[in-house]
Amino acid sequence: MDVIYLKLTIDGIETNKPAVWWDKESNTVKMIDQTKIPFEIKVVTCTNYRETVLAIKNMIIRGAPSIGAAGAYGLTQAIFEFFNKKDYEKQVNIAYQELLNSRPTAVDLKNGLDKVISSLSKTSEEILKVAEDFALQIKEEGFKIGNIGKNLIKNGMNILTHCHTGALALVDHGSAIAPIKQAWRDGVRFHVFVDETRPRIQGKITSWELGSEKIDHTVICDSVSGSLMAQGRINLIILGADRVAMNGDIANKIGTYNLAVLANFHKIPFYTAFPVSTFDRETKTGKEIVIEERESDELRYVWGFNSQESRYQRVSLYLDETNFYNPAFDITPNELITGYITSKGILSAVELEKKL
Amino acid sequence: MDVIYLKLTIDGIETNKPAVWWDKESNTVKMIDQTKIPFEIKVVTCTNYRETVLAIKNMIIRGAPSIGAAGAYGLTQAIFEFFNKKDYEKQVNIAYQELLNSRPTAVDLKNGLDKVISSLSKTSEEILKVAEDFALQIKEEGFKIGNIGKNLIKNGMNILTHCHTGALALVDHGSAIAPIKQAWRDGVRFHVFVDETRPRIQGKITSWELGSEKIDHTVICDSVSGSLMAQGRINLIILGADRVAMNGDIANKIGTYNLAVLANFHKIPFYTAFPVSTFDRETKTGKEIVIEERESDELRYVWGFNSQESRYQRVSLYLDETNFYNPAFDITPNELITGYITSKGILSAVELEKKL
Repeated sequence: MDVIYLKLTIDGIETNKPAVWWDKESNTVKMIDQTKIPFEIKVVTCTNYRETVLAIKNMIIRGAPSIGAAGAYGLTQAIFEFFNKKDYEKQVNIAYQELLNSRPTAVDLKNGLDKVISSLSKTSEEILKVAEDFALQIKEEGFKIGNIGKNLIKNGMNILTHCHTGALALVDHGSAIAPIKQAWRDGVRFHVFVDETRPRIQGKITSWELGSEKIDHTVICDSVSGSLMAQGRINLIILGADRVAMNGDIANKIGTYNLAVLANFHKIPFYTAFPVSTFDRETKTGKEIVIEERESDELRYVWGFNSQESRYQRVSLYLDETNFYNPAFDITPNELITGYITSKGILSAVELEKKL
Repeated sequence: MDVIYLKLTIDGIETNKPAVWWDKESNTVKMIDQTKIPFEIKVVTCTNYRETVLAIKNMIIRGAPSIGAAGAYGLTQAIFEFFNKKDYEKQVNIAYQELLNSRPTAVDLKNGLDKVISSLSKTSEEILKVAEDFALQIKEEGFKIGNIGKNLIKNGMNILTHCHTGALALVDHGSAIAPIKQAWRDGVRFHVFVDETRPRIQGKITSWELGSEKIDHTVICDSVSGSLMAQGRINLIILGADRVAMNGDIANKIGTYNLAVLANFHKIPFYTAFPVSTFDRETKTGKEIVIEERESDELRYVWGFNSQESRYQRVSLYLDETNFYNPAFDITPNELITGYITSKGILSAVELEKKL
């Protein structure tokens, strides 16, 4: 597989890295610190599984698939640490639980841990290979999404995307961003409008990731999309999904539904891209999905870089007494979605159940 | 007229003030400093017309109608200063020009200055009354908009508004916010969702102004509106207008068009409120209005309050090399607008030309 890692400049040196990897020289887990991206890009080294647990808890690593890979590597660390020692299995089980509890309800994390623990009887090389294969599988899915979705992108297009769906979340490549990156690498030339994506401003990460590949793009406020569509300046919308129901309704980052309605009004193709693990056979329609409300502080404060003092800091945008409503995502019904970009092809809503 | 000024707490003392006024004791022009609202609320005193020019230039006072009133008061200061002195008329004309040039192309400013200069032959009391009447006329128009528009608001409604259309911009009362304030004062009880309004986050001022009247409200990101509408949680949308074309197309703060399309999709009434001076007989349709692009720094940086150091400061949200597209407003066509709230009644698009 033609894997091209994220292009990074760390300590002034250009390099290519995935979101998380096993370093064979030092037998440590390494990951890109996502807390201050894109202002500070550094690699965090976890020398034992306890440090990996802390890194997941402190959101050094984010994105369910990337967390799954970090968990698989973390459990491998524990197995290596306790192998041939007293209470081996008990210690490994403790590590499994600690890793599992490091972040709530991400099914990818449990999948990664289960793969590794079910290979406990194998050699250490084989166990490490299980963890690495788990990470590789996620990368491969992003790669397939990219290679399938890129066919939608033609020279001269203007593409709109929302939130961050990139390599940091999916170990490598990404979901909605993968077709964009793959088309650009193939020499197709186009422009990407990147939604700022309040409140957490993931647009800054998407912009940084597109910038690292020199993909032509501009960042816009979330309220600019309609004006661009009315001017005929958007030809294609591609974004991710947090959860896809059986009927094709999707839950995704707040603002996705606004874009879907606007795209419908202007007859602009609207696609969602996601790994198979995002398809939720337990959920029949979007109506069953409860909209999670997140803490007001995400809106009240903003984190930014203070260039005078060269540090990342927080300022208040509102008076302390201000009340907020801060839903994390919204529901977009299947009738507003043109197609679903998956590793099994570009599907229609009715094809999802059979093909995924 | 039952004028109720903006409720403010200045130096710990509750008071009611308009955006700008003439202080008869000291013969000075006073205005609320809008640069750090709502984090610091203070009154700026301009002891002569040169200080008033500086206050307008430095955006101590904002909003075309408020600037018009400040200009009228400023010219009155010049007349008082030079009366019975050498080169009286020449000095007053210099002051007129300096005030006129203090802010580009706000027609309200020229109107205010012309009213005062055409009464040069009158007594000083009469000249001051001309300036005060000019400010009063703006206030009265906001008051009428409020009293006419309030009839749209019923108990239990959820209302959505965008940007800041309040007392600070219209000397007192405001435009789109006036019906909301007037209905609340009449005892109608409802809830207001306030759009954050990136990039300049005018939602913080709207929230502060609604809060000063204890009007029930929550601030939301600009991308939340669609989700609320889909849930049936928005009954009415009221916002302002920067310019209204002859056919009823409006230019208004970026994001207005997104809301209009979403309202249309969900069959939610969508109203714009504005003073007569905003109706532009020189512009036939919205197609003639050029969309102004503003500086990227409005998106790149954000101003917020650093509570640890108790100061207002700027942080970067994006890497320095990021490119932005930052249109100040968008165009909403008349077919998406339910009605136009004016001092002459709630009008349809076809009535605008005759009634305004």
